[in-house]
Amino acid sequence: MKLSARNAFHGKIEQVHKGVTTTIVKVDIGNGVIATSSITNEAADELDLKPGDAVTAIIKSSDVIIGKL
Amino acid sequence: MKLSARNAFHGKIEQVHKGVTTTIVKVDIGNGVIATSSITNEAADELDLKPGDAVTAIIKSSDVIIGKL
Amino acid sequence: MKLSARNAFHGKIEQVHKGVTTTIVKVDIGNGVIATSSITNEAADELDLKPGDAVTAIIKSSDVIIGKL
Amino acid sequence: MKLSARNAFHGKIEQVHKGVTTTIVKVDIGNGVIATSSITNEAADELDLKPGDAVTAIIKSSDVIIGKL
Amino acid sequence: MKLSARNAFHGKIEQVHKGVTTTIVKVDIGNGVIATSSITNEAADELDLKPGDAVTAIIKSSDVIIGKL
Amino acid sequence: MKLSARNAFHGKIEQVHKGVTTTIVKVDIGNGVIATSSITNEAADELDLKPGDAVTAIIKSSDVIIGKL
Repeated sequence: MKLSARNAFHGKIEQVHKGVTTTIVKVDIGNGVIATSSITNEAADELDLKPGDAVTAIIKSSDVIIGKL
Repeated sequence: MKLSARNAFHGKIEQVHKGVTTTIVKVDIGNGVIATSSITNEAADELDLKPGDAVTAIIKSSDVIIGKL
Repeated sequence: MKLSARNAFHGKIEQVHKGVTTTIVKVDIGNGVIATSSITNEAADELDLKPGDAVTAIIKSSDVIIGKL
Repeated sequence: MKLSARNAFHGKIEQVHKGVTTTIVKVDIGNGVIATSSITNEAADELDLKPGDAVTAIIKSSDVIIGKL
Repeated sequence: MKLSARNAFHGKIEQVHKGVTTTIVKVDIGNGVIATSSITNEAADELDLKPGDAVTAIIKSSDVIIGKL
Repeated sequence: MKLSARNAFHGKIEQVHKGVTTTIVKVDIGNGVIATSSITNEAADELDLKPGDAVTAIIKSSDVIIGKL
């Protein structure tokens, strides 16, 4: 399936921290850059997310803020 | 100012495409990986965004979807 | 690819309305219920979206507000 | 009150799962299609959400990703 | 209808700027503080938004970033 | 750093409620108006958020819904 979301950063899961309903996933997308994602536990379980997994961090363009010094 | 948003990808603007109210900004965040952002024209004007500018793509963790093959 | 996003509504495109940078897509997800999506023109072009196409409207749970009378 | 949000899916709550700060709500929006929402506990309490309640899942168009095979 | 969204800022529309598909609405929420919203033209038309209208800017808590000096 | 996000509401933290992975922050932005934010615990810790802190609630225009009676 192709997605309209313009951002797809490939990487490897570094950490999965599960709460009661929400899981935080940290993905190394290369060169030490980390993408952090907050998802439901249900999603983390269904995708069986664990450190070392190859995953993609997907983000809609309308959710990307630009900062400039 | 420090931000609660967990994702901050540094890069260089590659392209700025302005519509009537909405501007699409493409940022090279390294190794040919492109982050795409959709912002208001007002923001693009106020930050004077143009190709070559050093910028940061900022994203809240709750906006990051995880995909796994 | 499996996605962490919990909402995936299958349907058929009813309308594609393209602006200068942003495209509005209307998807009939059954029983006359319409899902409306606002995406970049680039995405609409790359996915070659047109009326009649079978598509899925994908939404992260953190973007769903609950309303109750 | 009329809302600018273009997506309003009417349904019945199937499940409410409360964490320490975040609650997951599952809404049957018809034909076995489930909408999942992640909200604050405060909101779940204030709206007194419980299985069987008639509710509406509300989503802004800019939060809807399109997927196409 | 009560909404799970925790942020509801009441104010008066100051400006409506319509593009081809997307409209920018500026709302004075008091003391010179302006809330800016980007919505579909369809929504702006259906709600008949115009300067002077009393409106509410509604935002989900998961969309609010905290910045601290 | 200047941000493309069009909404920046200055205020004082009133409450910080920490869950296992997610923290709810309430900010008084003046005249008794409260902005509520849901962020990761990691962010709350890194910014050392506590009642009384001067902070800014930052929101992208595409995340602002307009409601009209």
